[in-house]
Amino acid sequence: MIFERIESPGLAHFSYLIGDRNEALVIDPRRDCDIYVERTLRRGVRLRLILETHRNEDYLTGSVELARRTGAEIWHADGHLAYEYGLAVEDGQEFFVGGLRLKAIWSPGHTAGAMSYLLYDPEGVPWMVFTGDTLLAGSVGRVDLFGGEAMANLAASLHETIFAKLLPLGDGVIVCPAHGSGSACATGTAQRSWTTIGIERRSNPRLQHTERGEFVRDVSRMLPRPPYFRQMEIRNLEGALLPNELPTPPPLPPAEFREMSGEAQVLDTRPLEGFGGGHVPGSLSLSLESLSEYGGWFLNYNLPVLLVTDPEDVSEPVRRLIRLGYDHIGGYLAGGMQAWHAQGEISRATTTMTAHDLCRRLDDGMALHVLDVRGQEELDREGRLARAQHIPLTQIPELWKSIPRDGRIAIFCGSGRRAMIAASYLEQRGLQDLIVVLGGVSAWQSTSCPIEI
Amino acid sequence: MIFERIESPGLAHFSYLIGDRNEALVIDPRRDCDIYVERTLRRGVRLRLILETHRNEDYLTGSVELARRTGAEIWHADGHLAYEYGLAVEDGQEFFVGGLRLKAIWSPGHTAGAMSYLLYDPEGVPWMVFTGDTLLAGSVGRVDLFGGEAMANLAASLHETIFAKLLPLGDGVIVCPAHGSGSACATGTAQRSWTTIGIERRSNPRLQHTERGEFVRDVSRMLPRPPYFRQMEIRNLEGALLPNELPTPPPLPPAEFREMSGEAQVLDTRPLEGFGGGHVPGSLSLSLESLSEYGGWFLNYNLPVLLVTDPEDVSEPVRRLIRLGYDHIGGYLAGGMQAWHAQGEISRATTTMTAHDLCRRLDDGMALHVLDVRGQEELDREGRLARAQHIPLTQIPELWKSIPRDGRIAIFCGSGRRAMIAASYLEQRGLQDLIVVLGGVSAWQSTSCPIEI
Amino acid sequence: MIFERIESPGLAHFSYLIGDRNEALVIDPRRDCDIYVERTLRRGVRLRLILETHRNEDYLTGSVELARRTGAEIWHADGHLAYEYGLAVEDGQEFFVGGLRLKAIWSPGHTAGAMSYLLYDPEGVPWMVFTGDTLLAGSVGRVDLFGGEAMANLAASLHETIFAKLLPLGDGVIVCPAHGSGSACATGTAQRSWTTIGIERRSNPRLQHTERGEFVRDVSRMLPRPPYFRQMEIRNLEGALLPNELPTPPPLPPAEFREMSGEAQVLDTRPLEGFGGGHVPGSLSLSLESLSEYGGWFLNYNLPVLLVTDPEDVSEPVRRLIRLGYDHIGGYLAGGMQAWHAQGEISRATTTMTAHDLCRRLDDGMALHVLDVRGQEELDREGRLARAQHIPLTQIPELWKSIPRDGRIAIFCGSGRRAMIAASYLEQRGLQDLIVVLGGVSAWQSTSCPIEI
Amino acid sequence: MIFERIESPGLAHFSYLIGDRNEALVIDPRRDCDIYVERTLRRGVRLRLILETHRNEDYLTGSVELARRTGAEIWHADGHLAYEYGLAVEDGQEFFVGGLRLKAIWSPGHTAGAMSYLLYDPEGVPWMVFTGDTLLAGSVGRVDLFGGEAMANLAASLHETIFAKLLPLGDGVIVCPAHGSGSACATGTAQRSWTTIGIERRSNPRLQHTERGEFVRDVSRMLPRPPYFRQMEIRNLEGALLPNELPTPPPLPPAEFREMSGEAQVLDTRPLEGFGGGHVPGSLSLSLESLSEYGGWFLNYNLPVLLVTDPEDVSEPVRRLIRLGYDHIGGYLAGGMQAWHAQGEISRATTTMTAHDLCRRLDDGMALHVLDVRGQEELDREGRLARAQHIPLTQIPELWKSIPRDGRIAIFCGSGRRAMIAASYLEQRGLQDLIVVLGGVSAWQSTSCPIEI
Repeated sequence: MIFERIESPGLAHFSYLIGDRNEALVIDPRRDCDIYVERTLRRGVRLRLILETHRNEDYLTGSVELARRTGAEIWHADGHLAYEYGLAVEDGQEFFVGGLRLKAIWSPGHTAGAMSYLLYDPEGVPWMVFTGDTLLAGSVGRVDLFGGEAMANLAASLHETIFAKLLPLGDGVIVCPAHGSGSACATGTAQRSWTTIGIERRSNPRLQHTERGEFVRDVSRMLPRPPYFRQMEIRNLEGALLPNELPTPPPLPPAEFREMSGEAQVLDTRPLEGFGGGHVPGSLSLSLESLSEYGGWFLNYNLPVLLVTDPEDVSEPVRRLIRLGYDHIGGYLAGGMQAWHAQGEISRATTTMTAHDLCRRLDDGMALHVLDVRGQEELDREGRLARAQHIPLTQIPELWKSIPRDGRIAIFCGSGRRAMIAASYLEQRGLQDLIVVLGGVSAWQSTSCPIEI
Repeated sequence: MIFERIESPGLAHFSYLIGDRNEALVIDPRRDCDIYVERTLRRGVRLRLILETHRNEDYLTGSVELARRTGAEIWHADGHLAYEYGLAVEDGQEFFVGGLRLKAIWSPGHTAGAMSYLLYDPEGVPWMVFTGDTLLAGSVGRVDLFGGEAMANLAASLHETIFAKLLPLGDGVIVCPAHGSGSACATGTAQRSWTTIGIERRSNPRLQHTERGEFVRDVSRMLPRPPYFRQMEIRNLEGALLPNELPTPPPLPPAEFREMSGEAQVLDTRPLEGFGGGHVPGSLSLSLESLSEYGGWFLNYNLPVLLVTDPEDVSEPVRRLIRLGYDHIGGYLAGGMQAWHAQGEISRATTTMTAHDLCRRLDDGMALHVLDVRGQEELDREGRLARAQHIPLTQIPELWKSIPRDGRIAIFCGSGRRAMIAASYLEQRGLQDLIVVLGGVSAWQSTSCPIEI
Repeated sequence: MIFERIESPGLAHFSYLIGDRNEALVIDPRRDCDIYVERTLRRGVRLRLILETHRNEDYLTGSVELARRTGAEIWHADGHLAYEYGLAVEDGQEFFVGGLRLKAIWSPGHTAGAMSYLLYDPEGVPWMVFTGDTLLAGSVGRVDLFGGEAMANLAASLHETIFAKLLPLGDGVIVCPAHGSGSACATGTAQRSWTTIGIERRSNPRLQHTERGEFVRDVSRMLPRPPYFRQMEIRNLEGALLPNELPTPPPLPPAEFREMSGEAQVLDTRPLEGFGGGHVPGSLSLSLESLSEYGGWFLNYNLPVLLVTDPEDVSEPVRRLIRLGYDHIGGYLAGGMQAWHAQGEISRATTTMTAHDLCRRLDDGMALHVLDVRGQEELDREGRLARAQHIPLTQIPELWKSIPRDGRIAIFCGSGRRAMIAASYLEQRGLQDLIVVLGGVSAWQSTSCPIEI
Repeated sequence: MIFERIESPGLAHFSYLIGDRNEALVIDPRRDCDIYVERTLRRGVRLRLILETHRNEDYLTGSVELARRTGAEIWHADGHLAYEYGLAVEDGQEFFVGGLRLKAIWSPGHTAGAMSYLLYDPEGVPWMVFTGDTLLAGSVGRVDLFGGEAMANLAASLHETIFAKLLPLGDGVIVCPAHGSGSACATGTAQRSWTTIGIERRSNPRLQHTERGEFVRDVSRMLPRPPYFRQMEIRNLEGALLPNELPTPPPLPPAEFREMSGEAQVLDTRPLEGFGGGHVPGSLSLSLESLSEYGGWFLNYNLPVLLVTDPEDVSEPVRRLIRLGYDHIGGYLAGGMQAWHAQGEISRATTTMTAHDLCRRLDDGMALHVLDVRGQEELDREGRLARAQHIPLTQIPELWKSIPRDGRIAIFCGSGRRAMIAASYLEQRGLQDLIVVLGGVSAWQSTSCPIEI
């Protein structure tokens, strides 16, 4: 028997490979599906089935590509949508792989046609439930993705799904969601990497509101919706194929890179200190760990991507772009920034300052506009900076014009990572004299601009 | 947060790496502990603690070696024993790693001083319990290892441990045992690779006997005790170090191999068909998948091991031997059997026959002694062969003299794998005219020697 | 600067990756070209050029596939042929990659339009010459591939190429041929894995005949021509693409395997002892090391291939089949022979006997027909077996009907490997009572059937 | 037959594994010798011999460690030195491995007792010569390592070695030196990665001076001698063992790192832009590609090293430190600079400026002291900066006090890499207002401080 959880960092995405007696199925495959092909080959199993828990909005699935390569059947949830491939799962439908059995459970809430799949162990005991984005460790899926009007109904459905369908499976059943901690599809997921019905029933904050009205009020929140979700929704209906294989973008010598950058977007995935120290003018800073989370907010589907990375780091950014459907990657800077400088190309630096130093200067009377790009819940939890303008990072593209263009601007985010993203975006738009603040609220000790809880 | 289960095939052994905020601990490390060093390095954590659930009897732990390489502290269960290293855990003792907490639960049963460790999730919820050999998926640990007299007390303790300590943790708690399906430390383990208190409470056959007396009767069974267990028990008190690094035995040209084999034991890990087709006279057949399970019954600690493998297959047999403490590996046959034959060395073949053919010949009146080496529970489940002598494989070293030495002997085990082990052992002792039967009871269709249920 | 030789075992094929300043070229890529894509990505170079030394006859090139994946240009030798892709190289044409220069040298002999490529080092010194199948370590390419009439002209051209073009490059130039020791494109290649003009001039036996007539006589020999060469020649003009990616054949449970085998050819790649010990009836024995060398003589392009391998060994046989254009691989036996036997499927064994034992029995008067499948040059070198019938392995498909069908047949080849291939082929055709002799002439000590030099 | 060249980047070091018929030898193994153990195991050969070409001065050999792990014999060149292990090779001594033969050729010049080893191919043809640091592609070994007095004699010996011993081996012989392009043991090595006697005879600039006096004058140059050479020489006589296995330094949370740094040296191996953007105060910038080349000039053997790296990059810096004998590595900064900043620790930035910008400011009259850290030969080749102070990077530790401490200092090196090393060193010593110039002479366009050829 095979049970393997495959984690895709960045998206905090979990897919699952389940096999028995030379047969296997995959639940919610990611787009770069080579891993499933490789694993089934190594384990000596034949992929028969691909099951989806819902029409995904935060990444492209690999279902069509994987089916093409293995001959597996694709079964959809959200079967009311106009898929161009695969078959629609019915509530209660059973699937078999080797001696194992799974049963589909219609689980509306996150989407109207979401499915969970209950897996019985080889001896027929209810064992694991694959809940997609419906029930996650410490959280439940967002119900706001289809707009404010649909939200109330979805929230009510979610209550029914969780309390009337999932919890009754029994405390001992292992819950296998589609995301771990840090996904855009849910907020407040817990850090525990494995969970059960029992643990969620006892300690998931959302599940403490057992009464329907209360539950609905609790989960009905409009959250920012990344603009790329729309793309994902459309392309997941069409069935995204890989361009060919995973792209292998060519190295571009500095002069060629510069010329091509005129009709492209330059993405710099180096750590923020490297970006601050020197970068290609007009490039966007999204370090590897930020790429999956914020790429969909800042990257344009209509322009090719040119990459600046540390040497030999190109495969991983490519994978992460592909998962979000940024298929046109024009190349990467050959030899990195060192080659760029060696060729005498122009670069820019972004000033960084520790929170400690900045506070000292603020208190010494330095004239500064402070821009805080943390999210609302962080402000609630950690306190506001008095005198600071607050625009959450993801709303910068919409609201950046409200930032005063004259004078020095210090950007704060609690570490420097998001501040550097914002700084790179603002630099593209012509703002100057930007300072990225390194370090968080614990290092922020200012009398003139104190933290207010 | 890091949670990783590390599986050692063959022994069906599970060890666990748990980490948080740059700190980590390992539970029940195996002897070839390079994997933990490599993982902690890759994950950026420092190993602080090594926890043992009991004094192991079926493999050598890597605790001392791992502590030497990382500086971690070793904490023992079964602290009443005379360990030459490490510290003894107390019931209720707490351990911390990053922001995580574990609590020791004294869990006598499999051994008198076994400990379970309850892990709380980052938010303080009881999350996982590491039960060692006390509670396994579908089974409980053996209570017969300390002899018939101790058995009753241990069985009663086990009842208390399970019903008064472990089950009350709650159905939702995930159970992480030290073994999966196929270990010598328990019988009847289920195939499900992950489990919970709730699943075990509902479906573990042993746990259906909730009443103490009934439970004690059910679990009190004397089972065969592999002779190597004694070695493991002693050396696990001493604290086994690796010889140096993992040994890298030299390739031996055929003539050198032959000469050295005079004072060594030759172990052939090729698939049984290869062994049957031609092998070094006097060698023992233990294919890779049999090695961990049966090596401890048939290999001698006082003789060096010489290996015959398929080309480039030598690392994995070496690891498996080392886990059992067979440290002196003299070399392997350079170029495999092909080189052996090319040099004109003498080899032997073992006749194989499918069950179908053998039955036909039996029914045609061929004179044959049938030796069945299956275990008692298989006979009970699948039926006996009328007219066959029955000696379970592991008792062959003790009882082989009862096998008639004149005439042809067909050895049956349900597949051929164990029959070939037996045949190689008997061939070493001078028996001839041996036939290994390929295939199982479903293929056995004989009227003269039918299956009797 | 990058210089990498990529070896494809089995075919003893060498291809070369050469790069400088972010650009690269490949000479004579093999069909499974993932390795070049992976290397160029890792080395940070862009593949610009694919150069071929001649229209290959012994394997499928990966030129078209590699060009599709990287955008590189393909340049052909043998440009007079009707290629469906790429461009024809002219004598003297120069190629540039980074700061490196190569010059094409028309090198007829092995084929009429073969090209060598002289590479200058970064400072302009003649450095390496890529000679394809024209000049190899210790040998020269065959001149008989276009039939007896063309042979004399090709041999004369080869003399001119070697003595007037290649040797004058200077003793210090490094020779990089397309094949190492053990290829079907040349005989008598030396074991030295790297060589130079100087070493070849001094010690290549063919190059000691400097006078044209003498040289032509020496090299003009009609050798066996593997039937698959014709396929390779045609498909290399068309430009073979990979079916998709490298195929990942499915595991087939025994019953399904048996059913499919009715319209397929079963290929068993296990070591010969395993095949001898038990195999699927009707299967062909070609162990992994024999597959590239003999597959093209024994496998049929019009039937799917079903594989029997040792567990988890399936990728490498698949690669080797794909290199020869056997693209339709229907699957492999799930669980190997052990599963086959466990399901009660019928198998056959092939008797093996050491040379030593066989000779003893021969001398004791056993009635035996001895079939020797060694090649003519081995007979010349090692001696004939008196009383044996001699048919080289590769001529068995043509001449097997001349083998007497009644009585026991012992097949000898000097090790057992080729004898087992022959035995499996003859078994397919209904011959019985076959004995494969293990071991070589050094172990053959018979008075009744002595070795005659 | 096995012939493998193993390259150690950074040191540009080549070692060689040569094997035949299950036996192997290694020439000049590096200290982290796991690679040889792993290769011999994979190739099925037993390591019998370790040959050294001379007592190495630029890295620690792995001979003793490798012998301990494999049982191989160690044979020294420079046998007049007081080695504490191994045996001394005699001129003309022969070694055998499988069917291969090597002959030692006494080759004084780089050291007094250097040996070359001539390898004959399996057919007895002189094939390859392993020349250590005596003859390299495009260069010859330094003769100044034993001081000015010994230099004349060594230079004369080198003339004899090359012209009377090596060149007569014949143009076709392949030359296998101990270093490729970029080693501290020779200057001006060519980029060609493989070479022959013939190529060197024709195009090695040193070898164009065939007359002894002329040759001696040409090669007799006192070059900077890295201070760590002395350590290497001593420890290579003692026979360096690895501390245990390769060290696996622990991750240190920021506060612990800061505390430990008081009695340690902090080494930052990130790319220079990252270091410039923000670093631990007092840390030394040596990016991964600079570490082997400059580590021996700037690191102290008496202080533990603490590392700052990009995430998960720690193994490679550790290997490179170990090769130079920096065995005491106290740990690395857990979570990198991001964690450092998040904890509110103090950091420093180093100002960078492109050459283009700097020149503009210089010409606008900005007051600046320009420090040029290029080597003398670069100045000769590329021109001097008028008005700049010139101190080659490796002489900074000796001469830094001559740098004016008041006012702004711009450091130029042609790319920024060496300038950042110098800046970090000067910052440690209290200099402030340092600017690292990015880009080279081609980008330097200043009228006030022009380039003078």
